[in-house]
Amino acid sequence: MTLVAASQIAPVVGDVIENRARVRAALEEAAAQAADLVVLPELAQSGYVFKDVQEARSVAEHLDGPSVREWSDLSRRLQLVLVAGFCERGPDGHLFNSCVLIDHGQVRATYRKAHLWDRESEFFSRGHEGPPVVDTSLGRVAMMICYDVEFPEWTRMAGLGGADVLAVPTNWPLEARPEGERPMEVVRLQAAASANRMFVVAADRCGVERGVAWVGGSVILGPDGYPLAGPVAAEREQLLTARVNLHAARTKTISASNHVLTDRRPELYALLTRAHEESPASP
Amino acid sequence: MTLVAASQIAPVVGDVIENRARVRAALEEAAAQAADLVVLPELAQSGYVFKDVQEARSVAEHLDGPSVREWSDLSRRLQLVLVAGFCERGPDGHLFNSCVLIDHGQVRATYRKAHLWDRESEFFSRGHEGPPVVDTSLGRVAMMICYDVEFPEWTRMAGLGGADVLAVPTNWPLEARPEGERPMEVVRLQAAASANRMFVVAADRCGVERGVAWVGGSVILGPDGYPLAGPVAAEREQLLTARVNLHAARTKTISASNHVLTDRRPELYALLTRAHEESPASP
Repeated sequence: MTLVAASQIAPVVGDVIENRARVRAALEEAAAQAADLVVLPELAQSGYVFKDVQEARSVAEHLDGPSVREWSDLSRRLQLVLVAGFCERGPDGHLFNSCVLIDHGQVRATYRKAHLWDRESEFFSRGHEGPPVVDTSLGRVAMMICYDVEFPEWTRMAGLGGADVLAVPTNWPLEARPEGERPMEVVRLQAAASANRMFVVAADRCGVERGVAWVGGSVILGPDGYPLAGPVAAEREQLLTARVNLHAARTKTISASNHVLTDRRPELYALLTRAHEESPASP
Repeated sequence: MTLVAASQIAPVVGDVIENRARVRAALEEAAAQAADLVVLPELAQSGYVFKDVQEARSVAEHLDGPSVREWSDLSRRLQLVLVAGFCERGPDGHLFNSCVLIDHGQVRATYRKAHLWDRESEFFSRGHEGPPVVDTSLGRVAMMICYDVEFPEWTRMAGLGGADVLAVPTNWPLEARPEGERPMEVVRLQAAASANRMFVVAADRCGVERGVAWVGGSVILGPDGYPLAGPVAAEREQLLTARVNLHAARTKTISASNHVLTDRRPELYALLTRAHEESPASP
C-alpha cells in the first residue's frame, strides 16, 4: 500500500526563500504521516500572479537551481517521491511553467506546461512534450499542470502511457459556480480518473495573491473517479492523504467484455490530430 | 430560445408496438410543453436486454421501417427535432445499435454506436463513422450513444465538429456508487460539456428489464458543465426540459486569451491515433 498526499499550501509570489521554507514544512508534515508520494502546487517555488516578465525572470531557476536541489535533498532524507511546480529558466533563457518528479533524491523527470492559461503566455514558453509517465519506486506516476487537464486528450495520453497515478500541481483561480456544485476543475479530473482507471492526486494552492483567490480544490481520486480525500474546495492550507493500492489502476476491465483502453477506436480518431479549423457556422 | 427535452421512459424488451406507443406518448407530452428538441433513450424502439441474437433480430428494423416512419410523422406533426435509439437492421442484414435524428419530419442522420458495451457485441456490429453533427433548424446537433461518451475522444470530436448540443440516447445499467455522489456517467458528461463548451441532453431509461436496473440519470447540461435540469438519478419516467440559447455554445473563449478548441495542441496528440499497445508493466 502507498500513502499518497496532496499538500495545499500558500506560496508567496516572488519570495523563493519563504516558499522553500513552506515547501520544506509541507514535506516534513507529510513525511510525519509516512507519506510515500507528495504532490505540491503549481509554481510552489515562485508564486503565480507575476506583475510582469521581469518579476518572473527574477525568480526563475534552472533545473539544478537551489529549490530543486533542496527538494532533492528532502526527498532523499524523508524517503518519498515528490512532484512540485517551479518557475523554470531553460538552458536558452526561456521561462517555463514546469514541474519536477523526484524519487528518493533523484530527479527523474521534468515537465513543461503545454497548455498555457490566460496571462501565462506573457511569461512562459509552452512545452512541446507530452506528459511524462515515470516508473518510480512506488509505481508509474504521470504529471501535468493545471489547465493541461482541461484537455481530455492530455489526460488520456497519461492513461495510455500506463500511469497508475496522475499528479497534478495546480493553481485554480476561483470562479463562481452554482451553489452545492463541485468545482468543474474537480469534475473534469473525476472524469479523467474514471475514463482511464487511474488515481489522481491534485494539489491546488490557497492564499489570495494580488487579488486573485483560488478554488483550493485539492483532491485525491480513485480509478472509479470518486474522491478518496477531499475535495477541499476552501482557501486554507491542508494536507490530504489516502492509503491506496496503486496497482489497482492496472485493472482496466470494467465488464466481462470491456476494457477502457482496448475498447478505444484509434483508427477513427484522426480528427483529433488535425490543425484546428473554424466550424462552418462559427460567429 | 430553444426548449430542449430529455424524455426518460421505460421501453419493454421485444415489444415494438408497445414501445412505439410509449415513444408517441412521450413526444406528445414534450410537444404539449412546446419542446423543440426531444431526446429519447437508446433502443427506445426495442428495449435493451435481449435474450439472444434471434430476439434482437426479430425486433430489428430498417431505417425506413415502421418505427422511424412513425417518428418522422410525429416529428412533422409535432413540429420538433427528435433523436431516438433503435435496433437497426442494416442493408446487409447486420444489426446495429443506432439512433436517428429527425428534423420536422425529415430524417437527417443516423448514427451507429461505435463503442459497444458488454454483451452488445453478441447482437450488434460496431459503427465505423464518427458522431454526426447536423445543422438542424434549431442549431447544430451531434449524437452518440451510451458507452460512446466514456471516450473523451468521441465527445471531443462532436465539439470539434461544431456541435451546439450533444444528444445522448442512453441505457445506463445501475452500479453502486458512494452515497451522495452523482452517477459517474453524469460526471463524465459534465466534463465533456465543459471541455467543449456545448450543451448536452442525455435521455436515460427506467424500468427494470430481466433483472437489469438503470441509473435513470437523464440530465440537461449547460456549456459550463453544470445541470440545467436533472440529473434525475431515479428509476421513474420523467420529462426534463430547459429553455436555452443554443448559440451560447458558439462562444468557446473562457478568458481574455483562452479558447477551448484553439488552445488544443493537436500536433502533440499523435499517440491518440495509434493502435493500442500494452503498457510496459501491465500485469
